[in-house]
Amino acid sequence: MMKSGPAEGGQLTQDDPRDHKANWGISISDLVMRAFAALGTLTSAVVMGTTDQTLQNVGQFFLFRRARYNDLPTFTFFLTTNAIVCCYLTLSLGLSISQVIRIIRSTVKITRIILVILDTVMLALFMAGASAATAIVYLAHKGNAKANWLPICQQYNSFCERISGSLVGSYFATIALVILITLSTIAISRC
Amino acid sequence: MMKSGPAEGGQLTQDDPRDHKANWGISISDLVMRAFAALGTLTSAVVMGTTDQTLQNVGQFFLFRRARYNDLPTFTFFLTTNAIVCCYLTLSLGLSISQVIRIIRSTVKITRIILVILDTVMLALFMAGASAATAIVYLAHKGNAKANWLPICQQYNSFCERISGSLVGSYFATIALVILITLSTIAISRC
Repeated sequence: MMKSGPAEGGQLTQDDPRDHKANWGISISDLVMRAFAALGTLTSAVVMGTTDQTLQNVGQFFLFRRARYNDLPTFTFFLTTNAIVCCYLTLSLGLSISQVIRIIRSTVKITRIILVILDTVMLALFMAGASAATAIVYLAHKGNAKANWLPICQQYNSFCERISGSLVGSYFATIALVILITLSTIAISRC
Repeated sequence: MMKSGPAEGGQLTQDDPRDHKANWGISISDLVMRAFAALGTLTSAVVMGTTDQTLQNVGQFFLFRRARYNDLPTFTFFLTTNAIVCCYLTLSLGLSISQVIRIIRSTVKITRIILVILDTVMLALFMAGASAATAIVYLAHKGNAKANWLPICQQYNSFCERISGSLVGSYFATIALVILITLSTIAISRC
């Protein structure tokens, strides 16, 4: 990697066209992954938030006949984390775009550091919501004979299908967040 | 920040004593947080793995009289993720120590980048295990009337206390991992 001179307070110093192209590639990838992750969280939140099933014919064994996401607090937590992370990703798209078009060239490095820290916090928060919901979905499907928790998905199959689908978007967004942190770290090392 | 000359392939270029001291401080903090996180995961894994309660007087309502962590698959997953992250943190202590004493000075930057990426993956894995277990512990304490899942902690109070305690170590380790990623990112930006 060629450098033209001493590094100065946060400014890009690479004048080599290959370096310039590589940095631009990283910025574009960051933008695309961020938009992809925002879309994943939005889809998950919408699918979870609109999940509603009312049973027509049901025995007396199950106490609820209408199943909504907020019947289980974990799903409410999942929806909240999705909403927070979706808002953050949408707002951070602005910073990502500014890096692509380099309108705030002098603050590229500090912007990336802030993005890595916030991305990491969001990854932790998001993973908490997604895996807590997965644990409950797993329980809803399989139940647990030892604890006498019966599976509810036999009755609420449409409800279970939708909440399971909602998790898929979340895991894509998780992978996108890990890639985002990796890209930003590489970008910082090249500043 | 003063730099003495052009940055060269991954080598530290700061010759300013203040910069040197700051970098050393970051390396020491990295080492301490890594050891702290490893201890947290180890404690959690040991507490979870040794949790075992047998009830002497129990009605017919609950199907199990002996409660162990592997009665619930989520706790087995939690123990597995704790074990993996604990092994990783212990192994990475070696790299962290090498940064403190700077025995592999020429690869400081690339080492830090690898550590950030692995730390991020471990954070995601670890958070998945911890929050899935938290969701089940919450259910064990509170139950869910809508899904007809009754709380089991009224019977298995010692079991529930231990697994709840096990989660505390995990959350300390999570905070330590987030701080580790932040420290490494700042260190990379200074290389």
